[in-house]
Amino acid sequence: MSESTFSIAGQSLIGAASMNGENGVFKGVNARTGEALEPAFGGASASDLARACALAEAAFDLYRETSLEARAVFLETIGQQIESIGDALIERCMAETGLPRARLEGERARTTGQLKLFAAVLRQGDYVDARIDPAQPERKPMPRVDLRLRNIAVGPVAVFGASNFPLAFSVAGGDTASALAAGCPVVVKAHSAHPGTSELVGRAIQRAVAQCGLPEGVFSLLFDSGIDIGRALVADPRIKAVGFTGSRAAGVALMKIANARKEPIPVYAEMSAINPVVLLPHALAARGELIARQFAAALTLGAGQFCTNPGLVLAVEGETLRAFELAAGAALADAAAQTMLTPRIHANYCAGVERLSRTAQVESLAASEQDNKQDKMQGGPFDAQPALFAASAQAFLADEALRAEVFGPASLIVRCSDLNELHAVLDSIEGQLTVSVHLEPADHEACRTILPTLERKAGRVLANGLGTGVEVGYAMVHGGPFPATSDARTTSVGGRAIERFLRPVSYQDWPDDLLPAALRGANPQRLARRVNGVLRREDCGH
Amino acid sequence: MSESTFSIAGQSLIGAASMNGENGVFKGVNARTGEALEPAFGGASASDLARACALAEAAFDLYRETSLEARAVFLETIGQQIESIGDALIERCMAETGLPRARLEGERARTTGQLKLFAAVLRQGDYVDARIDPAQPERKPMPRVDLRLRNIAVGPVAVFGASNFPLAFSVAGGDTASALAAGCPVVVKAHSAHPGTSELVGRAIQRAVAQCGLPEGVFSLLFDSGIDIGRALVADPRIKAVGFTGSRAAGVALMKIANARKEPIPVYAEMSAINPVVLLPHALAARGELIARQFAAALTLGAGQFCTNPGLVLAVEGETLRAFELAAGAALADAAAQTMLTPRIHANYCAGVERLSRTAQVESLAASEQDNKQDKMQGGPFDAQPALFAASAQAFLADEALRAEVFGPASLIVRCSDLNELHAVLDSIEGQLTVSVHLEPADHEACRTILPTLERKAGRVLANGLGTGVEVGYAMVHGGPFPATSDARTTSVGGRAIERFLRPVSYQDWPDDLLPAALRGANPQRLARRVNGVLRREDCGH
Repeated sequence: MSESTFSIAGQSLIGAASMNGENGVFKGVNARTGEALEPAFGGASASDLARACALAEAAFDLYRETSLEARAVFLETIGQQIESIGDALIERCMAETGLPRARLEGERARTTGQLKLFAAVLRQGDYVDARIDPAQPERKPMPRVDLRLRNIAVGPVAVFGASNFPLAFSVAGGDTASALAAGCPVVVKAHSAHPGTSELVGRAIQRAVAQCGLPEGVFSLLFDSGIDIGRALVADPRIKAVGFTGSRAAGVALMKIANARKEPIPVYAEMSAINPVVLLPHALAARGELIARQFAAALTLGAGQFCTNPGLVLAVEGETLRAFELAAGAALADAAAQTMLTPRIHANYCAGVERLSRTAQVESLAASEQDNKQDKMQGGPFDAQPALFAASAQAFLADEALRAEVFGPASLIVRCSDLNELHAVLDSIEGQLTVSVHLEPADHEACRTILPTLERKAGRVLANGLGTGVEVGYAMVHGGPFPATSDARTTSVGGRAIERFLRPVSYQDWPDDLLPAALRGANPQRLARRVNGVLRREDCGH
Repeated sequence: MSESTFSIAGQSLIGAASMNGENGVFKGVNARTGEALEPAFGGASASDLARACALAEAAFDLYRETSLEARAVFLETIGQQIESIGDALIERCMAETGLPRARLEGERARTTGQLKLFAAVLRQGDYVDARIDPAQPERKPMPRVDLRLRNIAVGPVAVFGASNFPLAFSVAGGDTASALAAGCPVVVKAHSAHPGTSELVGRAIQRAVAQCGLPEGVFSLLFDSGIDIGRALVADPRIKAVGFTGSRAAGVALMKIANARKEPIPVYAEMSAINPVVLLPHALAARGELIARQFAAALTLGAGQFCTNPGLVLAVEGETLRAFELAAGAALADAAAQTMLTPRIHANYCAGVERLSRTAQVESLAASEQDNKQDKMQGGPFDAQPALFAASAQAFLADEALRAEVFGPASLIVRCSDLNELHAVLDSIEGQLTVSVHLEPADHEACRTILPTLERKAGRVLANGLGTGVEVGYAMVHGGPFPATSDARTTSVGGRAIERFLRPVSYQDWPDDLLPAALRGANPQRLARRVNGVLRREDCGH
């Protein structure tokens, strides 16, 4: 492949075509310097959007019935095409996001790993949930019909790229991978914070579509510096579900558009979390300083720009907590400042830190050196300095503003008078992606008391760990009650993410030759199928 | 048990208590005569509602962690308590609904059958979706954590009784059974069309709660002649999901309330469908008259008051369709008039029939005898006379009003010029619960062309059958795209209905003794669990 294959043209990709959008122009921005990056990107128009949706709709019936193996190969091909871009992808992405090379190389591996995971999910086929309730013609008083069920794809899906995962939750990220696996064509609205990265990855998918001989409408990529195209995409009647990772305000706006449609559709928005970390007394006493260092490392990872960033710490006040606060403050003072993803995210972070600093009942533990530090480290203009605050549980319970997410490396320690008050604070918080508990064996009884509350608040509960680092596996839940996500019944990471883009269909009394392969008598796909409710594996005796 | 155990007091049931509501008074109505039935029911107040929700909330953490066996026994006990009411239940229900004895005895068996189905789902335990991704401490570059997933109950659930299934989709119906199975306390808003039936069944559940030693808040039953309590129930922050069967207007109103909450919650509303029946040419030629008689029987079953009632017939015009129309008209002329569920439903039905009769491009095939018939059969004032209409595909495509559901025994035949036009008509309709196709082997190729459209329009597709008669099994989907339901990803009948009231939670690195039983190393519940994505049965070699 020639070098020019990987050049960036500033174009939207509509099916197999590339086009210069004529609806406004914008450029990527160097996150470290704020300088514009070439080339200019043309914003997509309403008619570009309509064409992408029409192609997706036209591709749907064919694409959703491609074989499991064909879609698995397609996902793997996307991964290979992304890898084949090589360092050009990493370098452009570093410039656009300010994220370091090692992180982005890791994120690229995560992205191809997700594609491979869904290829494995497809080859196994359990996600189809094939079920057969055979006819019982002799049943009294009424004969029983033959009833067969399978999951099918919901239809074309809109995916919004995320600013904080330019690869793993953007153009070929988890939402796209799981929707394509389910059999849904995807129309991506690129995040304007990393347009060059988006185009490079979009072209990789476009090549994979061609290489696999799939209908071109399986994938399109639209650019827009504003919000019009994203809004119109969710409103388009051909779109049947939405995947989104971003702010609470934007996610809620998309939910409203989806609910106001003539046909409302599901929105899977992963939005806002402060990911409480509970330090139980014996753990705090036994290894408070170690936990403090682990906490500081998690808080500053990726400049704190993770959905699972530990923004809240809960513990019972006293000597051991004071020691933890000192150790955490010291560890954060040693942390290097890091460039944030965009100037706007940096400005919002600074405003959030400023707001907490000025709140009367909030004590600053590690934010005061912000200005000195920046000079000392010769940091860039968009670097974030970690910030750590403390407040009493009473103050926290009284002021809803203290529960708002500050996106970046800022956290608030809530000093509780006892475990009952700590439980009350937990009860007061909104839905979360993660809640962590640090505990020793002597804390188990106390933990048993709060665990039901933790399960109700979060999609993932951790013992002696921190939520950053979301394993891509079969047992992961990256989700949780509102406002962590718009739909607590789902996960956006891991094998179950495919379920978001499926719906069940039941087939009654169909001739075998008209049934989908998954439900035919001969079981040509050798799927595990549930017969009268009991799962039967082809290779298992029962 | 004494006879008085089964008396009707006109009281709401709040946990273990019974109370005379003081928020207005209403009575049940004899569906045949329109006369009021004793006793009077007092409407629940906002504070009654608050108390029911508080009890449900208080019961939730304990109830959701009862053993699978304990909940299975509870469901079976509810069924036994319903059966123990005996004929008093059937007689009251006949009076309130106008439905005949045989239908209601069948519906009672269906209701206890549903409870038994979910008991079986619980004992099997696959719905828990237990998953384990074991730790890999040696993995490079990062060790892998231990990650375990299970489904837990979402929280207290609001259920709305349905007018057309006073037993199987009301107080102890499919929504209640599946929510209780999932581990969710239930607060039922009784349908005011059958309050006595509701109280009898509610007291049966109340006795089962006590007999099983469960917390009283597991179940409450509220009466209200208006809509205030229902609206407030969906808005209550302690309620985490809603089950509803009824009209499109009411379902959409509940969706809006749920979406406007501070924490939006899922609404499972089963609303509106016209259930198209496609007659392919060879089937029409080979057995048009037989299909006509089957169609007429399905259309008039239960006075046409089923969600799956065949309200639309699509076929290519010609001699064979004309013969079908004549045969269907004759069969409907012979059908006895039947009492409708309520005077209001009867009035709405008559208005819908009247509207179609007056539509210029609609031909009446079997509605003209309405008045004569009523005299001849000495029918009651709220009897429905079947009605059959016909229109061209052009007229149907041009007039959206022809696609609206007329709840009752009315149907519209759409005469298409050819199969392409028939396909266009199918494409134009909204989401459906069912679509049926009547076909012969010579029709298979034509069917293959339209089948993808059918799958996209409906939750259940049938060959050579009609949608009435919804089998309660593992492979049933009683659902479908909006407006058939509010959530096409789910079913309200069959084993998968439990999924509506579950959400996944992931446990990372927990000590074994703090893990829920479903995820402990020793697998004390002997669940099938997915290990690294592969399902392992305890009794299967792999």
